[in-house]
Amino acid sequence: VKVLVVGGGAGGMAAASRAKRLMPDADVTVVEKSNWVSFALCGIPYLAGCTIKRLDQLLHYKLEVFTKKRGINILLQHEVVDVDVSARTARIVDLRNGKETTLEWDKLVIATGARSRATSIWPEIEEMDNVFYIKHIDTGDAIRRYALRPGVEKAVIVGSGYVGMEMAENLVALGLKVTIVEAMDTIVPNALDPEISRDLQAHIESKGVKVITGSPVREFRGDKGRASSIVTDNGEIEGDIFIVGVGIEPNTALARAMGLRIGETGAVWTDDKMMTSAEDVFAVGDVAEHKDLVTGRRVWRPFAQIANKMGYVAGSVIGGREASFPGSVGTSAFKVFDLAVARTGLTRREAEAAGFKPVEVELAGSTKPHYMPGGSEIKLKVVADEDTGRILGGQALGDDSAFWRVNVLAGLITAGATVWDLFFTDLGYAPPLSPVWDPLVVAARLLMRKLGEKPRY
Amino acid sequence: VKVLVVGGGAGGMAAASRAKRLMPDADVTVVEKSNWVSFALCGIPYLAGCTIKRLDQLLHYKLEVFTKKRGINILLQHEVVDVDVSARTARIVDLRNGKETTLEWDKLVIATGARSRATSIWPEIEEMDNVFYIKHIDTGDAIRRYALRPGVEKAVIVGSGYVGMEMAENLVALGLKVTIVEAMDTIVPNALDPEISRDLQAHIESKGVKVITGSPVREFRGDKGRASSIVTDNGEIEGDIFIVGVGIEPNTALARAMGLRIGETGAVWTDDKMMTSAEDVFAVGDVAEHKDLVTGRRVWRPFAQIANKMGYVAGSVIGGREASFPGSVGTSAFKVFDLAVARTGLTRREAEAAGFKPVEVELAGSTKPHYMPGGSEIKLKVVADEDTGRILGGQALGDDSAFWRVNVLAGLITAGATVWDLFFTDLGYAPPLSPVWDPLVVAARLLMRKLGEKPRY
Repeated sequence: VKVLVVGGGAGGMAAASRAKRLMPDADVTVVEKSNWVSFALCGIPYLAGCTIKRLDQLLHYKLEVFTKKRGINILLQHEVVDVDVSARTARIVDLRNGKETTLEWDKLVIATGARSRATSIWPEIEEMDNVFYIKHIDTGDAIRRYALRPGVEKAVIVGSGYVGMEMAENLVALGLKVTIVEAMDTIVPNALDPEISRDLQAHIESKGVKVITGSPVREFRGDKGRASSIVTDNGEIEGDIFIVGVGIEPNTALARAMGLRIGETGAVWTDDKMMTSAEDVFAVGDVAEHKDLVTGRRVWRPFAQIANKMGYVAGSVIGGREASFPGSVGTSAFKVFDLAVARTGLTRREAEAAGFKPVEVELAGSTKPHYMPGGSEIKLKVVADEDTGRILGGQALGDDSAFWRVNVLAGLITAGATVWDLFFTDLGYAPPLSPVWDPLVVAARLLMRKLGEKPRY
Repeated sequence: VKVLVVGGGAGGMAAASRAKRLMPDADVTVVEKSNWVSFALCGIPYLAGCTIKRLDQLLHYKLEVFTKKRGINILLQHEVVDVDVSARTARIVDLRNGKETTLEWDKLVIATGARSRATSIWPEIEEMDNVFYIKHIDTGDAIRRYALRPGVEKAVIVGSGYVGMEMAENLVALGLKVTIVEAMDTIVPNALDPEISRDLQAHIESKGVKVITGSPVREFRGDKGRASSIVTDNGEIEGDIFIVGVGIEPNTALARAMGLRIGETGAVWTDDKMMTSAEDVFAVGDVAEHKDLVTGRRVWRPFAQIANKMGYVAGSVIGGREASFPGSVGTSAFKVFDLAVARTGLTRREAEAAGFKPVEVELAGSTKPHYMPGGSEIKLKVVADEDTGRILGGQALGDDSAFWRVNVLAGLITAGATVWDLFFTDLGYAPPLSPVWDPLVVAARLLMRKLGEKPRY
């Protein structure tokens, strides 16, 4: 059996590893455009800020683990430029010398990932040396080399998503004055409800970051290959280095050229076996969409942990095992200046948009009993459905336990739990670890009151 | 309506508060033997070790919150000595002067808690000033006053349960040389499987605590009201101060005298409304048993967080609301010398005893990606049922995230999740917060392999 995997990121390598493990005699080949496989793109901001010192630390496994230990063929700096679905062949170009070869395949995995939307919005930045957006792990290195040049003092971050937040912290760590410019009225608008965003904004402002919201960026200005300012609806902002984090989009060019069905999200459609609309062709990772377990709708969630599981499923199915990817509930998280921020399920706004009747509570609680030293405040929001009492989502902000409380909610949401189930969930308790009435339980209690006290288990 | 609550701990005060809230015109009275209500017994080791400075910090709410704000009558230093169930009266003694009164009630809540088994095992210690076991929150104060006397250097802790662990840390903090003596072969034997216990033992030994296992204590020796040593099966151990933490038992004397049904666990039997076998009589907190949600059997779990929820249910039912306490899954936790230890569901040994066919994995994982600073090792064990793939239990040991990973498992176990459900649970991921393959997901993956890869959702 010949398995061809296009793309050596999280999803692609998980699929390749799993398929080869189940079929030791199979010929498994990964074609990767860059010079790395198994790269941790999520680590880029920390490389930029010197929290991580060396670029090769961002490789989960060394190349030899895949080639020698696992027996996978890896073609680095190669690109799949054309696939013939009926003939089951792929045309491959060696990017170092332009040489073309044709590979045969029995099973094909599209794992082409995603790319920044930066240049499609502002084409002018392609020519500007001091404007950065994430291309690959070496972007982290390039940012810090530029940021540490003499005279580079003012950093402007366009977009306040997760990358924007993480870059802000890391550029402050390098000694830069940082301004974040966000088009919407609140920061991290796609992931958090405004109440949580406002607390987050106050926190990063307290660390010296300037935040400008409600200011779409019209253009980048500069000359001689160097940006000097951005023009927003509310004026011009000067900077020495610019980071663009305005979101990403799936790399569907190859999938489209192959005629694969593209889903309503703009990513490649697959079934729960990660099979695309073409026989024996799979798609995994950031290029593929999947099902949201709260709404049942198709979603696109380009996260490494989801890519890994999709890859596992595709590799299992290719290897002849029963497997399916059930979907996700939209859990995501980041940390900025020691504040963990996490969400799962639907925000109130998303719940409304999906046709639910959301009821919500938001509370500030302590992470420990009042009498124990070392406790801190956690902000917690839980959203439930008025009709069924079902938990729809949660958001939290605080120390690392905020992240874990959201993970507890993620598990309960997946199970279809109601706020009564949350109230009675048997969470552990010990004074150095949590308060006896945990904020999660208090949130459930307040929601029970709002929902009318008639239990729904 | 007249509501009488016997006992002012977590369960009793939760029941009283809830009933009064739902029935503002009701006459709600709490009778409490000690001088405090709403006391946090779990804080005692931290009071002993001066982590908590003042005894009154261990009161969750001041007396006035209950009496003035909530309108509850509280009789401190009073004891209910006799209850006439058919006449609906209770005979009450004022412990300060011996005066007796009789109160009428329409609804009665038994919340008499639990007490140490120390003196029933070793009656001789009742006369010994330097042997301590938890009676009430002032025990914490008494221990530290004695421990800080000149010449008091060697502490011996009898029993390695949660109290033993927490006392060890706190007595080391006071500068004492600490020895723990445990009858069984491993420490914390009732809560943890031996593999986890051994890691825990290595940790506390690395902090200078001497641990002696497999050594039942036969007697305490000493004279003039002072113990000088304990005699074990393996020799004599000398000490200046002794702490006994060998477990507790429910205070069922009043319930037995009333003729209430006592369950198979030795605690008061109740239904899921917290109603006892006598009409209009409820039992909550450490005196009451309840249902285990994994085995369906009756269990006795004297924990404050469970007492609070039982009290809420009893108060709700008394107040005419629909409510029921579904049960628990056996989650508990403690922290010792910065190591969080938690468990939920069944240990392998408990699973075997309950008739399951347990399959287990135990792994050491990192709390963060390899490339991020500040990660630490977590030990995680997950137990599943071979026939159904259902998760039966989990144990973890590490930084605080070990506690939270166990809480995630607690939610999934309650929902009846399988190891496949765990694998696909949408946990968040961000480099400063967790690795992309979280130890929970790795544990699921390893269990899937052991269970034969045939998915069971």
